[in-house]
Amino acid sequence: MLSKEDNELLTRIGPGTATGDVMRQYWMPILISNELPHPDCDPIRVRLLGEALIAFRDSKGRVGLLGEHCPHRGASLFFGRAENCYLQCVYHGWKFDVNGKCLETPNEPPESNLQSRVRATSYPCVERSGVIWAYLGKEAMPPQLPDLEWTLMPESNLHISKRVQQCNWAQALEGAIDSSHTAILHGLRSDKLYDGTERQGWLYALEDTHPRFEVEDTDYGLAIGARRNAAESSHYWRITQFLMPFYTMIPPYGPKPVLHGHAFVPIDDENTLVWTITWHPTRAVTPQDVLPETEHIKHLGGGLHVTEFLPATSEPAGAWKPAANKSNDYFLDRGEQRNSRVMGVPCVALQDAAVQESMGPIYDRRNENLGLADAGIVRFRRRFLLAARLLREEGKASVGVHSPGAYRVRAAAVVLPRDIKSFVDGARDWMVIRPGVHMDAA
Amino acid sequence: MLSKEDNELLTRIGPGTATGDVMRQYWMPILISNELPHPDCDPIRVRLLGEALIAFRDSKGRVGLLGEHCPHRGASLFFGRAENCYLQCVYHGWKFDVNGKCLETPNEPPESNLQSRVRATSYPCVERSGVIWAYLGKEAMPPQLPDLEWTLMPESNLHISKRVQQCNWAQALEGAIDSSHTAILHGLRSDKLYDGTERQGWLYALEDTHPRFEVEDTDYGLAIGARRNAAESSHYWRITQFLMPFYTMIPPYGPKPVLHGHAFVPIDDENTLVWTITWHPTRAVTPQDVLPETEHIKHLGGGLHVTEFLPATSEPAGAWKPAANKSNDYFLDRGEQRNSRVMGVPCVALQDAAVQESMGPIYDRRNENLGLADAGIVRFRRRFLLAARLLREEGKASVGVHSPGAYRVRAAAVVLPRDIKSFVDGARDWMVIRPGVHMDAA
Amino acid sequence: MLSKEDNELLTRIGPGTATGDVMRQYWMPILISNELPHPDCDPIRVRLLGEALIAFRDSKGRVGLLGEHCPHRGASLFFGRAENCYLQCVYHGWKFDVNGKCLETPNEPPESNLQSRVRATSYPCVERSGVIWAYLGKEAMPPQLPDLEWTLMPESNLHISKRVQQCNWAQALEGAIDSSHTAILHGLRSDKLYDGTERQGWLYALEDTHPRFEVEDTDYGLAIGARRNAAESSHYWRITQFLMPFYTMIPPYGPKPVLHGHAFVPIDDENTLVWTITWHPTRAVTPQDVLPETEHIKHLGGGLHVTEFLPATSEPAGAWKPAANKSNDYFLDRGEQRNSRVMGVPCVALQDAAVQESMGPIYDRRNENLGLADAGIVRFRRRFLLAARLLREEGKASVGVHSPGAYRVRAAAVVLPRDIKSFVDGARDWMVIRPGVHMDAA
Repeated sequence: MLSKEDNELLTRIGPGTATGDVMRQYWMPILISNELPHPDCDPIRVRLLGEALIAFRDSKGRVGLLGEHCPHRGASLFFGRAENCYLQCVYHGWKFDVNGKCLETPNEPPESNLQSRVRATSYPCVERSGVIWAYLGKEAMPPQLPDLEWTLMPESNLHISKRVQQCNWAQALEGAIDSSHTAILHGLRSDKLYDGTERQGWLYALEDTHPRFEVEDTDYGLAIGARRNAAESSHYWRITQFLMPFYTMIPPYGPKPVLHGHAFVPIDDENTLVWTITWHPTRAVTPQDVLPETEHIKHLGGGLHVTEFLPATSEPAGAWKPAANKSNDYFLDRGEQRNSRVMGVPCVALQDAAVQESMGPIYDRRNENLGLADAGIVRFRRRFLLAARLLREEGKASVGVHSPGAYRVRAAAVVLPRDIKSFVDGARDWMVIRPGVHMDAA
Repeated sequence: MLSKEDNELLTRIGPGTATGDVMRQYWMPILISNELPHPDCDPIRVRLLGEALIAFRDSKGRVGLLGEHCPHRGASLFFGRAENCYLQCVYHGWKFDVNGKCLETPNEPPESNLQSRVRATSYPCVERSGVIWAYLGKEAMPPQLPDLEWTLMPESNLHISKRVQQCNWAQALEGAIDSSHTAILHGLRSDKLYDGTERQGWLYALEDTHPRFEVEDTDYGLAIGARRNAAESSHYWRITQFLMPFYTMIPPYGPKPVLHGHAFVPIDDENTLVWTITWHPTRAVTPQDVLPETEHIKHLGGGLHVTEFLPATSEPAGAWKPAANKSNDYFLDRGEQRNSRVMGVPCVALQDAAVQESMGPIYDRRNENLGLADAGIVRFRRRFLLAARLLREEGKASVGVHSPGAYRVRAAAVVLPRDIKSFVDGARDWMVIRPGVHMDAA
Repeated sequence: MLSKEDNELLTRIGPGTATGDVMRQYWMPILISNELPHPDCDPIRVRLLGEALIAFRDSKGRVGLLGEHCPHRGASLFFGRAENCYLQCVYHGWKFDVNGKCLETPNEPPESNLQSRVRATSYPCVERSGVIWAYLGKEAMPPQLPDLEWTLMPESNLHISKRVQQCNWAQALEGAIDSSHTAILHGLRSDKLYDGTERQGWLYALEDTHPRFEVEDTDYGLAIGARRNAAESSHYWRITQFLMPFYTMIPPYGPKPVLHGHAFVPIDDENTLVWTITWHPTRAVTPQDVLPETEHIKHLGGGLHVTEFLPATSEPAGAWKPAANKSNDYFLDRGEQRNSRVMGVPCVALQDAAVQESMGPIYDRRNENLGLADAGIVRFRRRFLLAARLLREEGKASVGVHSPGAYRVRAAAVVLPRDIKSFVDGARDWMVIRPGVHMDAA
C-alpha cells in the first residue's frame, strides 16, 4: 500500500520527475541493433521515458538519438533522410549529425548565423551484444554499461524479444519479482500436477504455493529469496534479483535450463517496453530454448517470448504490440482455462501482461492488501523511493550507477540445508557469473 | 431549462453523487438471467453507475457481483475461474464467494492472517422472472424488489432486450416520458396517415400531434397524461408512468396490444443500458408481439426491440451495442425518410437513440426551450432533484424504496369523457395491475 | 518564437476568442456549391471555427446554415428533412427556415407562444463561383465578399479541392508563406536538378535554396518577396500574398502556368480545412493543369490537389480526409525518398500536411529557432496578433473587412533588375488582376 504521493513518485517518469531522474542516470536499452540494420538505413521512432525521439544510423554506422522535432520549426525528423553522416530534415533541409550538431541550414542565406547557434536534442548511444543503449542523463561523462551477463555474451548465445505492455513500468516490474504467482498464474492446476519420475527442484514450486520470502539489500538492488519446503532437512530456494533501475532475473527452471532476464523500460507513464532476454553462458541459444516444447513447459503455458505481433503503426510506440492484447482479452480460452492451464492465455508473457494491465494503466496502490508473499515488492518500492529521494534532495547517485561490476550476478534455483544463516551466503556460488561455466538449476 | 448545477446534480451518477445515491437505494436490473447460463459459467463484466464489477454464478447457482479488482493487488476478476462455490483470481489464486468473503489466499504462508482481514467489494443479487437484480446501497437489509408487472410474470409472458445508448440516463429517460414526439419521430408523415376502416384510438395520436399534458404526483413517481381530441365529447388519453428511479411504461397502441416498459440503467455518466420489456398479462409473448409486422406498426418504423448488435468487445460496456449506431448515422436512409417514415432509421428504439445521442453525451439543459408539451419532463426533473436533495440533506428515503406495491400499475390508452375531474380518476381501472386480466387499449 | 500567451492568442479560434473574432468579421468559404447539389437535398454537417453547424439548401435553392442542435431540446438537425422551404427537426417536428426563423412547433398546442419566441442559430450564406460563403460575425449588415480573383471567375476556369489537415490553421498557413521550403520539401535533390535546355525562372528556385526575404504591409495583409540570384544584374522574385484572415497565393511556376491559391479555414483549434484553388484568367482549367504530368512537375512531387480520400464518416469533420494521412505516414516511400523526390510522399499537398502535422496539433512556438528565411512568418504573426488586439481592445475592424477590392491581386514570379527600390513597385504590373489578361511567369 502506497500513499497517493508515493504512488505518483514511483510511477511518473517524464522529464523532471524524480523517478525519471533516477532512470536517466543509467544507460538504457532502447533498440535491438538490427532494428537499424545498416548505415543510412531508415530512421525510426523511439518513445522513451515520455520523450519523443528519432534513432538513426549514420554513414559510418554510428547510432544517433535525436529529439523528434527539428529545432527550426518542429517538423518530425522521422521523415528525414540519413546520408553523408547526417540526418536531414525534409522541411528546410537542415542537417544534424549523431551528436545533434547542426551541419547546415540550406534555406538560410550565408550571412545567417543560425547554424552555429542551433543544436538538436541528442543523447549518446553505444552498442553491446546486439543491443543499442542510450544515456539520457545530465553528466557530460556517462557511466559505464552495467555488466549484466547477457550484455557480455556473443550474440549467438542470446535471444532477445520485446513487447509493449499497456501499463506503468513499476506495475510490470512488480510482477517479475513476485515469485508467489508463478505456480498459480503460470502453473498447473493442483489436480494436474506433473507426476513424472525425474524429480526436479522447480516442481517444488508447483506443489508448495506459499513460499516464505527473504529479501536482502545488495550493491545492485535487491536479492529476493523465495523459500519452499523440499526434503525434510532442506529448502528449495528461488532467488530473483531486482537490479536498478528496472532489471530483473528469472531463476532457472526445468532440466538443462537456460537463463532469462527482463528489462522494464518505460515508454511513458502508461506504457512499458518489456525486454525479455534468454541466454546460455556456454553455448548458442536454440529455438527449443526460446519456445520450449517439453511437456513440462507446455503445461506451464508456453514460453517467455511473445512471437505474434500486430502490424507496426505510425503511433509513437507503434511496434511490438502483441497480437493477443487487452482489446481481445489476450485470446483468453475459457475451455483451456477450465481444463488445463490456470489462465487460458497463450504464453507466460501474455499471462503477466493480462493481469498487470487489468490493474489499470497506473494502479492505485492505496487499494491493495499486501501479504507476507509480497515482501519483495514492498522492499523494491522502499528501495526505489529512497533512491529517488536521495537523488532529488541530496543529489546522491543511485546504487549501481558507478559500479557496473555489481551487475555480474545470476538468478538461482537451489536446494540448500534448512540451517543456513542467509540464502545469499548459501547460494553464493550460484549467484555469480562464471564466464564459460553454467550451473545447473536444482 | 436547468442551471449548470442542477444539470450536474441530475446527470452524475458515480459513487458519492446525490443522484447516484438515490439510485443506490433501489434494486436495479443488471443482467438477463441467461447471461449467466449455468453454475460456474464464465464470469462477465458489468459496468453500473460508474462502477467496474464482475458478475458470476457459483456452483450452487447463486449470483455474485464483485468489484472488478482483486483486493490483493488489483488484477481483474474477469479472468477468474468459478468453481467450488468461489471465484478464484488467476494471479495469486485468492478465492472469493458470492458475498465477497475471502476463502483462501494460497500464495500466503499459513501464518498469514490476510485472508480473514480481506473482503472483496460485493453487492447482493436476486433473480426474478429471468432478470438478475443487484442492490448497491448502504443498508444492511435491502428493500424489496419493486412489484413492476413484468417482474411478476412467468418468463414465457415476457420478452426482454437491452441496448447501450451513448448518452446520459436522464436524457434517454426524458425521451420516454415525452409523448409528443411519438407521432412525429416514430409516426407516419401526415400525408401518409392510415386511412383504413377499423378506427383505433391510437390513430388520434397520429392526427392530433399536439397533446395537452397533465401530470400528477404519485407514490411511485409521476403519472403523465397526454390528452388529445377524440370524438366531440371525449378525449383520447395516453398515460405514461415515470417510476423511481428510472422506469417508464408505454401506453398500449394498435389492436390487441401487448404491454411495454423501459428501464434506463446508468452504465456511467455518458452511457446507459436501456432495457426494453414487452409482456402480456394473460398469454405468452409471440415473435409477432416483439417484431410487429402489421402495416400499422411497420409504418410506425419497426418495433421497440433492437435485434442487431455489434460483436461484443472487451470494453467495460462492450456488449449490447446496436449495429446501427452513432458511428454510422444509425443506417439513416434518406430516401426512406423522404418517402415514408419520418426518420429513415430502422426501428423505434434506434430512432430514439439517434435523436437523444445527437444531443451530446450529457445535454446542457441551459440551451433548451421547453414548451407546454414538455410538462412531463419538467415535472420529472423537479421530482428527481427534490428526491436527491431530500436524501442528501435530510437522509430521507426516496419514493417507492419502501413501497414495492406502489409499482403495481399499468400505462393506459383510453378514451374518456371530456368532463372528468382528473385523468388518474378517470383511468383508474386501466392503470392498475389485474392479475390475469388484460384491458384492451382504446 | 512566440510566448505561450501569444501562441494561444494566435491559434485558438472558438467562440469568444480574439483570433476567432477576427475571422468572424469576414465571409468564409464553407462548402463547394455542389456539396448541396439541389433544392431540398440532404442536409450536411459543417464544423467551422469550433462550431457545430448544419447546412441545407431550401426548396428555393437558398442555402441555410443553422446551429446543429435544435433550440427545443438539442436534437441534431442533421437528421432533419428539407422541404417546403424549411428544415424540419425529426424529434418534435419543429420547422426552421434558412434565417433560423421557427415556422412551426407541431407538438405544441395552439395556445403555446413558443414558436414566436424561439430562433435557431443561423448565419447568412451567399454563393459565388461555385462556392458557398458564410458570415459568422455580429454585424447586422455583413461586409462584401473579398474580390479574390478566383471568386470572380466562371466556374469552368476554376478547380477547387479541399482536404482536412490535422493541425492548427496558423501552422498550416505558415507553411504556405514560407517560400524557402519549396525547393527542399517539394524540390528535386540537388544531384537530380533539371538540366534541360529551356531555361525557366522557377528553376532558379531549385538552385538557389536560400532566398532573401522582404516583406511589405499592404491593404489586404502582406506581400512577401523571396529574392534569389538570377543573371548577374537581375534577381528572380517569388512573391506570395498573405490576405486576411487566412488566404495565401502561390507564385506561378513552370511553363504556361495556371494560378493557385489557398484558404486555411479552421475547423476547430486542431483541424483545418485547407482549400486549394487552381484557376486560369482566360481559359478553362484542364485536368493537365490540376494533375500536371510534365517531367518538371512530376519531379516536384505531383500536384497541389489531393485526389484520394477516405470514405466520409459521421464525425463532425468526417469528409475530405486524405487517404494518405498521419496514421499511415502519408504513404511514405523510403525508396522514392532516397532516389528521387526529397520526401517520398505522393503530392505537394501531402508533403506539406506531413511536415506540418508532425509538429503536433498545435505547435508550441516557444521551441522554434527562426532564421532570416522565416521573415514572412514573423511578419504574419505580428500582423495577425496586432489585428486581434486592435479588434479586442479598440473594436477596430481588421484590414480588408471593408475593402473587398484590395483582394484583387495576384502572386507573381518575375525577374527584376537588381537595382529596384522595392519589389512591390517593380512587380506592380504582375501583382494586379487584369481581367482577361494572363501574365506569364518569369
